Amino acid sequence: MLREIEISRAIIEAYTAELLESLSLDVAIVGAGPSGMVAGYYLAKNGAKVVIFEKKLSTGGGIWGGAMGFNKIVVQEEAREILDEFGINYRPFKNGLYVADAIETATTIASRAVKTGVRFFNMVEVEDLVLKENRVAGIVINWTPVMMTGLHVDPLTVEARFVVDSTGHGAQVTQHLVRRGLLQVPGEGPMWAERGEELTVKHTKEIFPGLYVTGMAANAIAGAPRMGPIFGGMFLSGRKAALEILEKLR
Amino acid sequence: MLREIEISRAIIEAYTAELLESLSLDVAIVGAGPSGMVAGYYLAKNGAKVVIFEKKLSTGGGIWGGAMGFNKIVVQEEAREILDEFGINYRPFKNGLYVADAIETATTIASRAVKTGVRFFNMVEVEDLVLKENRVAGIVINWTPVMMTGLHVDPLTVEARFVVDSTGHGAQVTQHLVRRGLLQVPGEGPMWAERGEELTVKHTKEIFPGLYVTGMAANAIAGAPRMGPIFGGMFLSGRKAALEILEKLR
Amino acid sequence: MLREIEISRAIIEAYTAELLESLSLDVAIVGAGPSGMVAGYYLAKNGAKVVIFEKKLSTGGGIWGGAMGFNKIVVQEEAREILDEFGINYRPFKNGLYVADAIETATTIASRAVKTGVRFFNMVEVEDLVLKENRVAGIVINWTPVMMTGLHVDPLTVEARFVVDSTGHGAQVTQHLVRRGLLQVPGEGPMWAERGEELTVKHTKEIFPGLYVTGMAANAIAGAPRMGPIFGGMFLSGRKAALEILEKLR
Amino acid sequence: MLREIEISRAIIEAYTAELLESLSLDVAIVGAGPSGMVAGYYLAKNGAKVVIFEKKLSTGGGIWGGAMGFNKIVVQEEAREILDEFGINYRPFKNGLYVADAIETATTIASRAVKTGVRFFNMVEVEDLVLKENRVAGIVINWTPVMMTGLHVDPLTVEARFVVDSTGHGAQVTQHLVRRGLLQVPGEGPMWAERGEELTVKHTKEIFPGLYVTGMAANAIAGAPRMGPIFGGMFLSGRKAALEILEKLR
Amino acid sequence: MLREIEISRAIIEAYTAELLESLSLDVAIVGAGPSGMVAGYYLAKNGAKVVIFEKKLSTGGGIWGGAMGFNKIVVQEEAREILDEFGINYRPFKNGLYVADAIETATTIASRAVKTGVRFFNMVEVEDLVLKENRVAGIVINWTPVMMTGLHVDPLTVEARFVVDSTGHGAQVTQHLVRRGLLQVPGEGPMWAERGEELTVKHTKEIFPGLYVTGMAANAIAGAPRMGPIFGGMFLSGRKAALEILEKLR
Amino acid sequence: MLREIEISRAIIEAYTAELLESLSLDVAIVGAGPSGMVAGYYLAKNGAKVVIFEKKLSTGGGIWGGAMGFNKIVVQEEAREILDEFGINYRPFKNGLYVADAIETATTIASRAVKTGVRFFNMVEVEDLVLKENRVAGIVINWTPVMMTGLHVDPLTVEARFVVDSTGHGAQVTQHLVRRGLLQVPGEGPMWAERGEELTVKHTKEIFPGLYVTGMAANAIAGAPRMGPIFGGMFLSGRKAALEILEKLR
Amino acid sequence: MLREIEISRAIIEAYTAELLESLSLDVAIVGAGPSGMVAGYYLAKNGAKVVIFEKKLSTGGGIWGGAMGFNKIVVQEEAREILDEFGINYRPFKNGLYVADAIETATTIASRAVKTGVRFFNMVEVEDLVLKENRVAGIVINWTPVMMTGLHVDPLTVEARFVVDSTGHGAQVTQHLVRRGLLQVPGEGPMWAERGEELTVKHTKEIFPGLYVTGMAANAIAGAPRMGPIFGGMFLSGRKAALEILEKLR
Amino acid sequence: MLREIEISRAIIEAYTAELLESLSLDVAIVGAGPSGMVAGYYLAKNGAKVVIFEKKLSTGGGIWGGAMGFNKIVVQEEAREILDEFGINYRPFKNGLYVADAIETATTIASRAVKTGVRFFNMVEVEDLVLKENRVAGIVINWTPVMMTGLHVDPLTVEARFVVDSTGHGAQVTQHLVRRGLLQVPGEGPMWAERGEELTVKHTKEIFPGLYVTGMAANAIAGAPRMGPIFGGMFLSGRKAALEILEKLR
Repeated sequence: MLREIEISRAIIEAYTAELLESLSLDVAIVGAGPSGMVAGYYLAKNGAKVVIFEKKLSTGGGIWGGAMGFNKIVVQEEAREILDEFGINYRPFKNGLYVADAIETATTIASRAVKTGVRFFNMVEVEDLVLKENRVAGIVINWTPVMMTGLHVDPLTVEARFVVDSTGHGAQVTQHLVRRGLLQVPGEGPMWAERGEELTVKHTKEIFPGLYVTGMAANAIAGAPRMGPIFGGMFLSGRKAALEILEKLR
Repeated sequence: MLREIEISRAIIEAYTAELLESLSLDVAIVGAGPSGMVAGYYLAKNGAKVVIFEKKLSTGGGIWGGAMGFNKIVVQEEAREILDEFGINYRPFKNGLYVADAIETATTIASRAVKTGVRFFNMVEVEDLVLKENRVAGIVINWTPVMMTGLHVDPLTVEARFVVDSTGHGAQVTQHLVRRGLLQVPGEGPMWAERGEELTVKHTKEIFPGLYVTGMAANAIAGAPRMGPIFGGMFLSGRKAALEILEKLR
Repeated sequence: MLREIEISRAIIEAYTAELLESLSLDVAIVGAGPSGMVAGYYLAKNGAKVVIFEKKLSTGGGIWGGAMGFNKIVVQEEAREILDEFGINYRPFKNGLYVADAIETATTIASRAVKTGVRFFNMVEVEDLVLKENRVAGIVINWTPVMMTGLHVDPLTVEARFVVDSTGHGAQVTQHLVRRGLLQVPGEGPMWAERGEELTVKHTKEIFPGLYVTGMAANAIAGAPRMGPIFGGMFLSGRKAALEILEKLR
Repeated sequence: MLREIEISRAIIEAYTAELLESLSLDVAIVGAGPSGMVAGYYLAKNGAKVVIFEKKLSTGGGIWGGAMGFNKIVVQEEAREILDEFGINYRPFKNGLYVADAIETATTIASRAVKTGVRFFNMVEVEDLVLKENRVAGIVINWTPVMMTGLHVDPLTVEARFVVDSTGHGAQVTQHLVRRGLLQVPGEGPMWAERGEELTVKHTKEIFPGLYVTGMAANAIAGAPRMGPIFGGMFLSGRKAALEILEKLR
Repeated sequence: MLREIEISRAIIEAYTAELLESLSLDVAIVGAGPSGMVAGYYLAKNGAKVVIFEKKLSTGGGIWGGAMGFNKIVVQEEAREILDEFGINYRPFKNGLYVADAIETATTIASRAVKTGVRFFNMVEVEDLVLKENRVAGIVINWTPVMMTGLHVDPLTVEARFVVDSTGHGAQVTQHLVRRGLLQVPGEGPMWAERGEELTVKHTKEIFPGLYVTGMAANAIAGAPRMGPIFGGMFLSGRKAALEILEKLR
Repeated sequence: MLREIEISRAIIEAYTAELLESLSLDVAIVGAGPSGMVAGYYLAKNGAKVVIFEKKLSTGGGIWGGAMGFNKIVVQEEAREILDEFGINYRPFKNGLYVADAIETATTIASRAVKTGVRFFNMVEVEDLVLKENRVAGIVINWTPVMMTGLHVDPLTVEARFVVDSTGHGAQVTQHLVRRGLLQVPGEGPMWAERGEELTVKHTKEIFPGLYVTGMAANAIAGAPRMGPIFGGMFLSGRKAALEILEKLR
Repeated sequence: MLREIEISRAIIEAYTAELLESLSLDVAIVGAGPSGMVAGYYLAKNGAKVVIFEKKLSTGGGIWGGAMGFNKIVVQEEAREILDEFGINYRPFKNGLYVADAIETATTIASRAVKTGVRFFNMVEVEDLVLKENRVAGIVINWTPVMMTGLHVDPLTVEARFVVDSTGHGAQVTQHLVRRGLLQVPGEGPMWAERGEELTVKHTKEIFPGLYVTGMAANAIAGAPRMGPIFGGMFLSGRKAALEILEKLR
Repeated sequence: MLREIEISRAIIEAYTAELLESLSLDVAIVGAGPSGMVAGYYLAKNGAKVVIFEKKLSTGGGIWGGAMGFNKIVVQEEAREILDEFGINYRPFKNGLYVADAIETATTIASRAVKTGVRFFNMVEVEDLVLKENRVAGIVINWTPVMMTGLHVDPLTVEARFVVDSTGHGAQVTQHLVRRGLLQVPGEGPMWAERGEELTVKHTKEIFPGLYVTGMAANAIAGAPRMGPIFGGMFLSGRKAALEILEKLR
C-alpha cells in the first residue's frame, strides 16, 4: 500500500541529509546559469565538494530564452569543445559560429552536472555573505519565497572555502560587498560581442579573498561590454574559474 | 571577427525555420511537465512529429520543487523502468519507493526528449483551440509575456492531428472547451496518493475528439484524488497517451 | 568558538526531528487562534499527540487587535474559568463582563500551550485535506510564502485521526470539502453577540467524519451570528472540541 | 478554403524577411513620436534605409492626447509647411497659431511615413546600444512585454550607421550612455513655450558619435524649457536631424 | 510672441466646440478597431453625423500587433476592395490571401476616416448606455483614466439614434444590457477562420433596438468561431453595419 | 422633460467658461489644505483673482483625519480669531488650546472660500511650473488620473502673477525648482510643536521670484520642526501669505 | 508653553467622549454623499440623535467630481428649495435646470449638517449589520485602513433604531443582507435621467425592518435607471427618508 | 443579557485610559522583538513606566521564524540565564549551544513582560521623533494601517525621558535622525556570528541624547556583523540597555 507519509518521510530524510552535508563546502556557487553550471561541472569532475544555489525553481538562467524568445543560442569555435564535452548537438552557421537548441543546452548541462556530482539547492536565495578576517568564508541563505514576500525570517549559513558569484550581470553576491564599501561594480558596458567575449574570460578571477566571479558577473565587475546570445565566453569563464579554484583547493 | 548581427541572423533563421515547419503537426503537447515530456519522448521515439508548447521559460513543471522545496521526488516500483529508460539515478527508500533528485529528473527528461526529436517552444502560451466539425484540430498560440501584460495582440495557429493537455491540475487547454459548454471539469479531488496514482493512468485518454489528457489534467477531468510528490503516475500516464496516439496515427 | 554552521545544524536537526515525528498525529489543528490554541491545550494536557498548523508567522489570530486596534478584549462570566486556567489577568467591567489585555491573552495562551505539549508549525499553510473512504484522514501542507507567491511546488502530507478547523470565519479547511460539493458553508450571520456566543459552542462538533470545527469556523458552518470582540465562546468552543475528541481517541 | 496555418505562414514569412533585412541599417530611429516619424519620413524620402523602433503597440507618441485629453494640437506658422507636406488639415486660431486634430495628425504622419518607405517595428524596446571604438554602432532590441514582465531573455542586435533618439523627454536611448558616465542629461527645464520651441531645433544634433537626438530628447539633453502641446518644434527638429544625417550618409 | 495660454485657449475652445456639437449624434460608434473605423468611414462618407469613442489613447485596436507581434496582417480576396478603397498597399501571398503592413493599415484607415468626416474622442470610455422605452438612445461616457483609477466621478451623456458596439470580443457595450438581463452573450467560439469570417459578417446586425454590433463583438454575441489575424471579415462587417444604418437613418 | 444632454451641456459650458477665464490669474494656489484655503479666502476677500488647484477630488487636505483618525483638531489662542472669521465652532481645552471638529473645519473653510470668490479646480495636478526670465510665471496642469495612470498626455498652462505652494510637507510645487537645481528643500524637522508653529509663520514668504510657500511647505523649505494636529500656524501662514501678496499685487 | 501631549490629550478626550456617546443612536447613516448628508441634516434639525459614518476621509461622495471632472452639478426646479435651505448659490441654465458649483455644494452641505447637530465619523467603514429578531438594530464598524490592508482586527458595534444606507449604487450596507439571502439588489439600470430622478424618490423607504435606503442605493435596490450628474433626486430622497424616520421615531 | 455596545464601551474605556496614561513615559521602546521586550521586562521589573510600540499586530519580531522557517532558535551559554529568568525550556546541543522553541520563546517573553508591567501598543507605527534642544524627547505615532495605505492623517505625540530603538537592522527610529543629517547608520555588516554577538552588546548604548539602541539596531548603527538565528546577544543587549537607563532614571 502506498502511504502518503512515507512519501513525505522519504523526501524529508533525503533532503535533510543532503542539506546537513552541505553546510561545509569546498565551493559554493551562486546562480545556476551557464557559467555557474559549467564551473560546477568541472569542479565536481575533479573531486571538489560543490553545491550550486539557485534562487529560481529552475536551473538554466539566461539560456532558456535564446534571443527575444527565439530559443536558439550561438557558440563560437573556441567553445565548441565544451558543447562536445556535454554532448550537446549543434549546427554550423558560418564564420565559425554554431547554433544549438536553447532547451537542449539548458537541460543537458544541468543533467550532466548532477550526474557528475554537483548538488543543487533551488528556490534558495543568497541574502548575504559570511566575511571573516577580510575573507569571504561562506554564504547566508534563505528560501526565495520568504525573500519575495518580505516575511521576517532569519537565514541559515553555509561555510565554503570559495564562493563563486555566477549570478549574471547583477553580480548579486558581490553586491553584498559593494553595499559595505568593500568593492565597486561599474556594471556591464554597452554591447560589443567580440570584445565582451574576450573580456569575460579575462576578468574571471578571484576579485576578493575567497570570492570568484564568472560570466556576466565577471563582465559587470570589470565594466566590460555585454555580448548578447552568444555563450562561448560564459562556458569558458566557468571552466577557467573551476580550474583556478581546483588549483587553490589542492 | 565576431559580428553581432550574424548572431542575430543565425538565431532568427534557425528559429523561423523550425516555427514554419511546426505549423502542421502530428501531435501538439501543451505543458512541459513530467507527463507531457514523457509523452513527447515516446511519440518522437516512434517517429511522430511532435512539439511541446510551454508557457514558462523553463521546462520541468512541478518536478523542480520536490515537496515544500525539499528537492527530491518519489517514484514507485511500477514506474521505475521509466527512470531507467531516461537514465535517471535513484535510491531505494522502502516499501517499493525510490527517491530521485528533482533537478536531475527535470533536466534529464527534457534533455533526452530533445535528443530523441521532440521540439519545444517555450514562453509560448496556448490561448485557445482550433475546433472544426466538432474535432480539436490545432492550437492557438501567443507569447506568454504578451498574455501576461494583456497587450492586444492576435495569436498564430498551429494545426495538429492530436492535441495533448499536459498542463496539470488546471487542465488549461481543456478549459477552452469547458467555457464553451462542451465539456465539464470537476477538478482534482482531495489527497489520496494510492487511488490518485491509479486513476491518473486510467483516466489518461481521448476526452474529446482530437484531445488527450495526461497527468494531473487527467486527474482533474475525472475528479480523481491528487497524490502529491510521487511521480510514477505522471510518467505512466505520459507513456500511455503516447502509445494510444501512435496507434491512431498509423 | 561560535561557529555559524553549528547554529544551522542545531536548528535543522531539531526541526527535522519534530517534523518527522509529526507526520502521524492524533489531532492536527489548523489555525492558532483562540479556539484552536485552547483546543490544543486541553488535548495536550490530556495526553493527545497534537500539532497546530498556522499559516502566519505569529500565533494568536484575531486576539491581537482587540477591537479596531484598541487592544483589549472582553470575556463573559461563563468563560472566566478559562482565563484562570491560563493565568490571564482581567478586570471586571459590569454585567458579568471582564476586560483582559489582548497581548497578554494572545501570548499567554500560546506560551502555556507549548509548555503543555502542543507543537506548532507556523508559516505553514494547509492547502488541502487527505480524504479516504469518505473520512478526513490528514492534511496537505506547504510553506505559506510558497502559496503566496504562487510558485509551482508540491506539498507534503500529514496523517491525523482528527483534523480541527480553527481557521476562523473563512473555515478554510472545510472549504476544501465545500469546493468538492461534500459540504456547504452558509457563512457567519450578521452581528448578534449573545446568540452568536451561544451558537458557537453548540455548533462545535464533528461536521464530517474526522473533521471538527471550532470558534468562528463553527459559526460560519452553521450560519450563526457573529459576535465581535468577546472571546468566551471561542474559548469554550475550543475546550468542547478537545473534550469530545479525547473521548473518541480513547 | 481558408486555412489558418496559411495565415500564420504568410505573416511569419513576411515579418521574418523584413526583420532579417533590417539587421543592418542606415538609420535606426527609436521612438515613433512626432519628431521621430518626421525624421524617418524625410530620410526614407531621400533614399536612406531607415527603421523606427517603437516600444508601444501604437505609433504617435504624445500626439494622441492633445492637452489634458482635449485631442487637438497647436502648430505655429514656421512649421505649417510640414502639415502641408503630410496633407494634414488645420484651422487658424490667431497670432500665427493653427489648430489640428490630434488623431488626424498622429495617424496621417505614420501612414505617410510607411508609404514613403519607413519600416516600423512596434512592441519592440531598445534595451541598450552597440558601442564600438567610442562610436554608437547599433541598438540592442527586445520585445516590450518581455521587458515589462522582467523575464530573463537575451536581446537581438541591429547595426546602424546612425541611431536617432526620439524617445521624448526621458531620452531613453541616451540614458544608456549616461549610466555608463559617457554623457550627461540635465533633463527638460520648466515650461517656456517660445524658448523651448526655439531651443529644441537648435539642440537637434549628433550628441555622441553616431547618435542623434530629436524633439523632447534634444530638449532634455540641453536642459532647455518644455513647451507643452505645440508641435512645430518637434516637426522641425525631426526634419533637421534627417537632413543632417542624409548629408553624412552621402 | 508665443504665449502658452493662447495654446491652451486654442485647444480648449476647439475641443469644447466639438464636444458640445457631439452631444447629439446620428451614430455613436464605440471602439476604434478595424470594424468600427470602417463603419465610421462609410457612415461619414454618406453624410451621417458619426463619432467614434475609443477608450485607449490610440486608435487601431487589434491591428497594430499583427500576430504575436509580427506586425503584418492578412486579408482575403473578398475584402481586397476595401484595402483599395483606403489606399493600403498589399502583396499577394497565395490562395487568394494578401499580406499588408499592420502599421500602414492601422494608421491609414484612421487617417482616412478623419478626413472623410469621422470625429474621434479617444481616452474616453463608455461606462453605460442610455435606454429609454426599451430602445438604446445614447451612451454614457467618462475619461478612461478616471475609470482606471476608480475615482468617484459622474459621467456625461451623449444622445445617438444608433449606437454601434465595435469593442471586440468583449462586446463591452452590449455587456451593459447583459448585466441587466436584457441580452445574452455566449462569447466567441474556438478558432475556425473560414467559418468565423463568414459568420462575423452574417451576425453584423441590430441586436437590440438602437444597438448594432460589428466585428468580433458580432462574433461574440453569436457564439461564432474566432478567426485570428485575418481582417477581411472585420472590414466587411463594418461596411455592412454602415450601409444598414444609413438605410434606417433616411 | 428632463433631457440628459442638457445636463451635459449645462456642465460643459459652465466649466469651460470658468476654465478659459482662469487661464490668466493674479494668484494660483496649489493645494486645498488649511493654509492654501485660508490664503485663497483672504486674497479673494480683497479682490484678487485667485484659483486653488487641488490634486484630490476633495478639498481639506490634512484636516479631515484629526490625529490618528480621531477627527478633532486643536487651535491655539493666537489663531482663534481665524476660526471666528470663518464661523467655526470650538471648545476651550486648557492652557489656551481650543478643540474644533475636523469635518466642520475642513468643510466650512472651503464653503466660505467659494462664497467669497475663490475658484477651485479639483482632480487637477500641477505637473510643472512656468519659468521665464528667472521668475515663476504660472503653472502646468493635468488631470490627476492621467498622472496616476502614467498615460502620455500633454498638459495645459495657466499664467499667474504669483504661485503659492500650499502642498504640505512635500512642497511639491517647489520640488520642480529643486530638481532643476534652482532651490534646496531640507524637509520638515522632527516634532517640536511650539517651535514649529512659530517658524511656519516666519518662513511663509516669497522664496523665489513669483513663488510663495505656506504651511507645512514653508516648514519643509526652512527645515523647521513639524507640529502635529495643531492648526494655528497653518491658518496664520495662509493669511500672512495673502496679505503680503495683496501688497505686491497693488 | 505649547506641549505636544496636551494636544494629544485634547483630541483623544474629545473624540472618545463623542465615540462613547455615539454607541447608541436614533439613526446611523452610512455614507456622507448628497442623500445621506441631507437626511442627516433634516434629522438633526428635528432633534434626532444622528451620526454619519463615512469610509473615506472626506465627506461629499460623488458631488466633488461634477461630470468627468468638470466640477459643476445640475439641480432641477423641484429641488431648488433644498439649495436655498443650505444657502448654496446657483445659476439658471434653461428648462428649469440650475447649475451649482460642486465644491460649494459638497462643502456647504457638510458644514451646515455639522452645525445643525450631525456628527460624522470619517475613515470608518461599516463592515456588517447588527440583526436581531429579524430587525436591523445597528452597525458593525472598523477603521477603513484596517479594512483596506486586510489586517485581522475585530470591529466595534453601534446600536441604532434606524440604519440608513446612503452608500450609493453599491448599496454596500444592504449587501450584508443580500449575501445572507435576506434581500435582493438588482442594481441600477441604464441611464434615463427623468425616470431615474422620479424613481429614486419613490423607492426611498424602509426596505427591511430598521433599514432605510436613499439616493443611488434606493435606485439600485429598485433596479431603477441611473441619472448622471443631476442631484435633485438625491436631495429629495434624503429629505424624504429623514421625514419618514422622524415620524417613526416619535 | 449580553449587549454589544457594552462590549464596545468596555474596550474603548479601558484602551483610552491606558492611552492617556501613556502620553508621558519614562521609556518608550519601539519594536517588540527580542531585545526590546527583554529591555521592557527589566525596566518594568525595576519600576520604570515603560511602553513598547510595535508596528505589527503581533509581538515577537524575528523570533517566530527560527531559521528559514525551521522554528527553533539557538542561545549560547552566556545568555542561558535569561531563558531561565523567563522560564523558557531549552535543550543543549553542543559546544555551549542550546536550542529553544521559537513559538515558546516569542510568546513567553511577551507574556512575562505584560505581567511584569510592560504595556504594549501594537499596530502602532512610530513615524517620527520629538526633538527639543538637541535631545530626543518623545515619539510621534500613528496607526500602522494608516501608514500602509498612505492616507493623509496627522499623528499623535508621546513624551518619554528615553526612547529605545529596538526595531532591528533597519534601525527605523534612528533613521529619523539620519535623514536630518544628525547621525549616520552604516548598516549591519556581513555574517560573522561570534563577532556579531559580542559587538551587539558592546554597541548597546545611548547614541544620541535621549535615544538608546538595542539588538540588531545597535549592530546596524555600529556597522557590526550580523549573526543569524542565535539570540543571546539580543537578550543581553536588551538587559544592558534597561540597566543603564534605570541608572539614569534615578
